[in-house]
Amino acid sequence: MNKINETKAFGGRQIRYEHSSNTLNCTMQFSVFLPPQAETSKVPALYWLSGLTCTDENFSSKAGAQRVASELGIALIIPDTSPRGEDVPDDSDGAYDFGLGAGFYVNATQQPWAKHYQMYDYIVEELRTLAESELPLNGKRSISGHSMGGHGALVMAMRNPDLYRSVSAFSPICHPSQCPWGEKAFSGYLGDDKQAWLDYDATELLLKLKQSPPLLVSQGEADNFLAEQLRPDDLADAIRQTGVQGTIERVDGYDHSYYFIASFIDEHLRFHAKYLVNSLN
Amino acid sequence: MNKINETKAFGGRQIRYEHSSNTLNCTMQFSVFLPPQAETSKVPALYWLSGLTCTDENFSSKAGAQRVASELGIALIIPDTSPRGEDVPDDSDGAYDFGLGAGFYVNATQQPWAKHYQMYDYIVEELRTLAESELPLNGKRSISGHSMGGHGALVMAMRNPDLYRSVSAFSPICHPSQCPWGEKAFSGYLGDDKQAWLDYDATELLLKLKQSPPLLVSQGEADNFLAEQLRPDDLADAIRQTGVQGTIERVDGYDHSYYFIASFIDEHLRFHAKYLVNSLN
Repeated sequence: MNKINETKAFGGRQIRYEHSSNTLNCTMQFSVFLPPQAETSKVPALYWLSGLTCTDENFSSKAGAQRVASELGIALIIPDTSPRGEDVPDDSDGAYDFGLGAGFYVNATQQPWAKHYQMYDYIVEELRTLAESELPLNGKRSISGHSMGGHGALVMAMRNPDLYRSVSAFSPICHPSQCPWGEKAFSGYLGDDKQAWLDYDATELLLKLKQSPPLLVSQGEADNFLAEQLRPDDLADAIRQTGVQGTIERVDGYDHSYYFIASFIDEHLRFHAKYLVNSLN
Repeated sequence: MNKINETKAFGGRQIRYEHSSNTLNCTMQFSVFLPPQAETSKVPALYWLSGLTCTDENFSSKAGAQRVASELGIALIIPDTSPRGEDVPDDSDGAYDFGLGAGFYVNATQQPWAKHYQMYDYIVEELRTLAESELPLNGKRSISGHSMGGHGALVMAMRNPDLYRSVSAFSPICHPSQCPWGEKAFSGYLGDDKQAWLDYDATELLLKLKQSPPLLVSQGEADNFLAEQLRPDDLADAIRQTGVQGTIERVDGYDHSYYFIASFIDEHLRFHAKYLVNSLN
């Protein structure tokens, strides 16, 4: 992987890398924040999955996460939201919610998407392996994200509780097989067999697998997408039914924007630190 | 003034307004953060002047200032960096450092700029009067900014120590009559008589007026513009010669970006709070 640029931030280093992805069959960029503790020892990592239309730069520049990550000694690994490049097909109408910037963190099985849109494997396997071999990371990791990225984080953590010590999400798409964003994306990437969708649906996965790392979800009550697209009540029901350790926090007045993330990212980082920094094993 | 949008952030309200400016002869937008304390009483304000190419949205979304502003009970008033609109002339080459997005906080005297480019009066008079009559502000105010905006903040504070209780700047253009950015802007907006430039040059103003509100400047040592454009040593010499209360803080490794601002905005807000919140008069 090649370093594109590096900027000092909160005593640590905000870095953007480029690499050739075998999983996605294209060149990818991702961002990393290394806290000052990483200069002298290996540190744990929080992976952050962004939402529709984002790249790795939105969370890097708008969430203000580096401040507390620096304090706690946690690295941030921030991938892009889809494969990229001229060879990568996009939605024919240029829709914001399918194709480029909208990979939905699945392994596509349908044409013409399957060659490049393998974001699940990219995040869980290739990027993790690359980052943890090239950067001063100690192999303790958690995962978080926003909206489409919150969906991705929940799915990856529930399917891999051995890989992720904790999971959190802001305004996640909790039940994608039952909402317009998810129906459109899953139909396109996975086809019409809805059985295949359930492997990428946090609510359905939790009911089926009955496992999750400790889980925190924050959801603003003034979020325009709340009722139609996000459906946190469905995930809350699954948490109650399965008895996993999970909290869905509803906060008055906040919307779907990065101002909401910035307002509560400290709380999420401190939640993850309980499992990443203070744990003995 | 009309509210364009409002988002909850850090317990307060991030709002964007539009108004018709008599000073600039165009419609302007600006952003405001009202801390939660403003719901029940009038609060002091920090005016923030942004740098080249920015609008009111860069500082709003990237600096993370709302967190500590909310804690301290300080409103943020964030204007645009130039007049705007189809009628407003721009640099004929579309340069980033003159014309739209680059008003340099002066009152232009040259054609075709003079009709619209009156950013000094807009900030010091019109916007201040408008904001403080329409918003829950108590009339205690300070001013800060970045790069071109740091220059603007220093100039406005030194010329109006009765209006601003304190002033700070990140990576300001300290001696604009002696650097390429300032020479280009002042030639264009103010003409070839360099005497007219000195009213908008912080280093020259300080030597002449020998007054400033308490002053804090932060400057990163890895800033690409440091030697050629910013010249903080010139301002440091003027502070020493005049004995005003001022600190120029040089910090290792930081560049000219918003990551630098985000890393030190807390310190600047707490500096201003000494004069805005804790003062008895």
